[in-house]
Amino acid sequence: MPKRNLFYAQSGGVTAVINASACGVIETARKHRNRIGKIFAGHQGIVGALTEDIIDTGHEPPSAIAALRHTPGGAFGSSRYKLRGLDENKAEYERLIRVFAAHDIGYFVYNGGNDSMDTAWKVSQIGEKMGYPITCVGVPKTVDNDLVGTDNCPGFGSVAKYVATSTREAAIDVLSMKQTKVFIMEVMGRHAGWIAASGGLAGIRKHEPPHAILFPEIPLDEVALIARVKECVKRYDNCVIVASEGVRWPSGQFVGRAGVGRTDAFGHAQLGGVAPVLANIIGHRTGFKYHYAVVDYLQRSARHIASKTDVDQAYAVGEKAVNLALAGDNAVMATIVRKSDKPYRWMVGTTDLRKVANKEKKLPRKFVTRDGFHITEACRRYLSPLIQGEDPPPFRNGLPDYVSLKNVRVRRRLKEKFDVPE
Amino acid sequence: MPKRNLFYAQSGGVTAVINASACGVIETARKHRNRIGKIFAGHQGIVGALTEDIIDTGHEPPSAIAALRHTPGGAFGSSRYKLRGLDENKAEYERLIRVFAAHDIGYFVYNGGNDSMDTAWKVSQIGEKMGYPITCVGVPKTVDNDLVGTDNCPGFGSVAKYVATSTREAAIDVLSMKQTKVFIMEVMGRHAGWIAASGGLAGIRKHEPPHAILFPEIPLDEVALIARVKECVKRYDNCVIVASEGVRWPSGQFVGRAGVGRTDAFGHAQLGGVAPVLANIIGHRTGFKYHYAVVDYLQRSARHIASKTDVDQAYAVGEKAVNLALAGDNAVMATIVRKSDKPYRWMVGTTDLRKVANKEKKLPRKFVTRDGFHITEACRRYLSPLIQGEDPPPFRNGLPDYVSLKNVRVRRRLKEKFDVPE
Repeated sequence: MPKRNLFYAQSGGVTAVINASACGVIETARKHRNRIGKIFAGHQGIVGALTEDIIDTGHEPPSAIAALRHTPGGAFGSSRYKLRGLDENKAEYERLIRVFAAHDIGYFVYNGGNDSMDTAWKVSQIGEKMGYPITCVGVPKTVDNDLVGTDNCPGFGSVAKYVATSTREAAIDVLSMKQTKVFIMEVMGRHAGWIAASGGLAGIRKHEPPHAILFPEIPLDEVALIARVKECVKRYDNCVIVASEGVRWPSGQFVGRAGVGRTDAFGHAQLGGVAPVLANIIGHRTGFKYHYAVVDYLQRSARHIASKTDVDQAYAVGEKAVNLALAGDNAVMATIVRKSDKPYRWMVGTTDLRKVANKEKKLPRKFVTRDGFHITEACRRYLSPLIQGEDPPPFRNGLPDYVSLKNVRVRRRLKEKFDVPE
Repeated sequence: MPKRNLFYAQSGGVTAVINASACGVIETARKHRNRIGKIFAGHQGIVGALTEDIIDTGHEPPSAIAALRHTPGGAFGSSRYKLRGLDENKAEYERLIRVFAAHDIGYFVYNGGNDSMDTAWKVSQIGEKMGYPITCVGVPKTVDNDLVGTDNCPGFGSVAKYVATSTREAAIDVLSMKQTKVFIMEVMGRHAGWIAASGGLAGIRKHEPPHAILFPEIPLDEVALIARVKECVKRYDNCVIVASEGVRWPSGQFVGRAGVGRTDAFGHAQLGGVAPVLANIIGHRTGFKYHYAVVDYLQRSARHIASKTDVDQAYAVGEKAVNLALAGDNAVMATIVRKSDKPYRWMVGTTDLRKVANKEKKLPRKFVTRDGFHITEACRRYLSPLIQGEDPPPFRNGLPDYVSLKNVRVRRRLKEKFDVPE
């Protein structure tokens, strides 16, 4: 079989461990010199393929590739650009094929969430529909943990560990302070409450914080929330709340002000501001002194407190993707399969990209307590294994020592340029 | 010499290492059973003394006291209550003496910042002015690093490490994302820019983030800031900003909205909201997509990423305070003395409480670059040693394993109650 080149790209919001998947892909591909020629990476995801902005990872020494395992962010740049359907924009697919052909790309490994798996699926179809031979494999990644067909999504376990740790730490601070009564921490999770739920791991016994978790799946009952805050302050002298950015009023409106009416490239409203809005309401209704935190990018880039389980799984799905590609398994995604909860045993598996694309796995109702403000034991059994183990990066001069790649570009072979809309 | 009891209390905002100081105090005091009888702790600082709400730390096993070294927050509760002058409220001092006498307290060790050192100084004067024999020693603590007379304040080094680490991690995330151009992280530091300055350690070379630091000491020039943002986005494709909560306009007004007109017990305006205000202005003026984070309590409770240097120093000043008390050194504070920058060498020292009380050490102008947006090499030389070394807490089930003390109360001996205003 002739050697063909591999194209890897990172898509959507990055995580603390997406580079661990990149490490798994590249280290595994380098072991198959007889089948895989060059290992390319797209600059900024699929945009790098469309614009022929391609990185040759062959310029990176093994030590730099190994360091990706402990480096957060997307080493090759990411993008939220989403391919439209073949019927809607055939020119994009024709362009992809020209770029792939010009660089003899026969393996396409795409690392992303549900929007990105849609893109990967579309690319996987160009072989059959447009006659270009390619094997396309997805690598799951999303802090939101909302991909179907996999036990969990690499990236999530580390956010969960960060959120649970930060909730526990901030709650100890709040408990120490006589004056502060309410603390609200806003976390990510636009439509799915997995990240907010992970805050629930901070406490073990019933009275331990957080005292309320606000999920996107549960419409926010203001009266019930205020009652709960008052009750907690009475009982525990304070109330610690973990709130998802995607919390909505019963009307369906987001509690967070939707920025200045901005939307991202996928058409989603840019959220933010749940914590200050809630803090204002609670302060006004109760008179309690409050503090709030908005952790934003910190939660998904905090490689210093990553979950070892998450790092291992992120690497494993990257490795698996290359093996699937070499086996000619087109249009599939590598997955995590849970064998048991306690002890947690898992293996890598496979699912069809088509089954994953554009689907969202929300927090099941049975994972939320009847009152809607906390997680159940079933939820705890699911979440707890994902935050196990520490895998700190090396430190240098008091700070995590992360790698920055050379990202040497491949010489362009196509004369025509291709513009991607912003 | 007869045995007398020791009273220790924690005051003001807590830190990731104030309990390491408590550990130093208690472990050292326990070594002097011939001189020190009971080791008491005030519940919620000086309030515990006034209300006779006193904890007997003798109920805690050595393992629990040792675990304070790796536990954030204030294990005995803290308070921002400030004693007024002896002339203004003699009743408070008379009450203190009654409580101290009832429990035979001869050593008073107060752990706090500049407001708290004022309280400690006032207490130190009741021997001479009111005839109650007591030795009063201060233990420095404040994330703001604004105490005079000491190289740095225990608590600060760990915040600095958290802020520098988080800035580095979030900046890698921002750099990965094609769409996001501006990221703002709001940090503490009401009047002094030390915490904001520590964000500057995240980058080493000139182009590395953060690209702008906003200090409370430098009035914010909006035109210059917008120009810098635009220039950074042009050069580096993004702009990462670390902003102190205390940044002010040239008019002197805080950039952050002052909550709902609240003030804390010391009469300071409760701040917050610098990041959203700046994000709005920058978004409006440049059209760039932005993200922001408000780390609030997380920065000062993040024991999981504490600086080992900071932990060691926090313990050392606690230990020193007991030795000073035993030597009869009244009205002094234990300090950190810097012997050299590189390698960093330090020892514990002493200063007069009176010289420390109510004074604020701001960031010197020579620590800020001429343009007002970054730190100088001199600042880096000062800050860098303070974040050196890691000292992670033990983990259990994926989360830091922090201790919660029994906090058994001493039986009240006074009949009268004493109310402290909220």
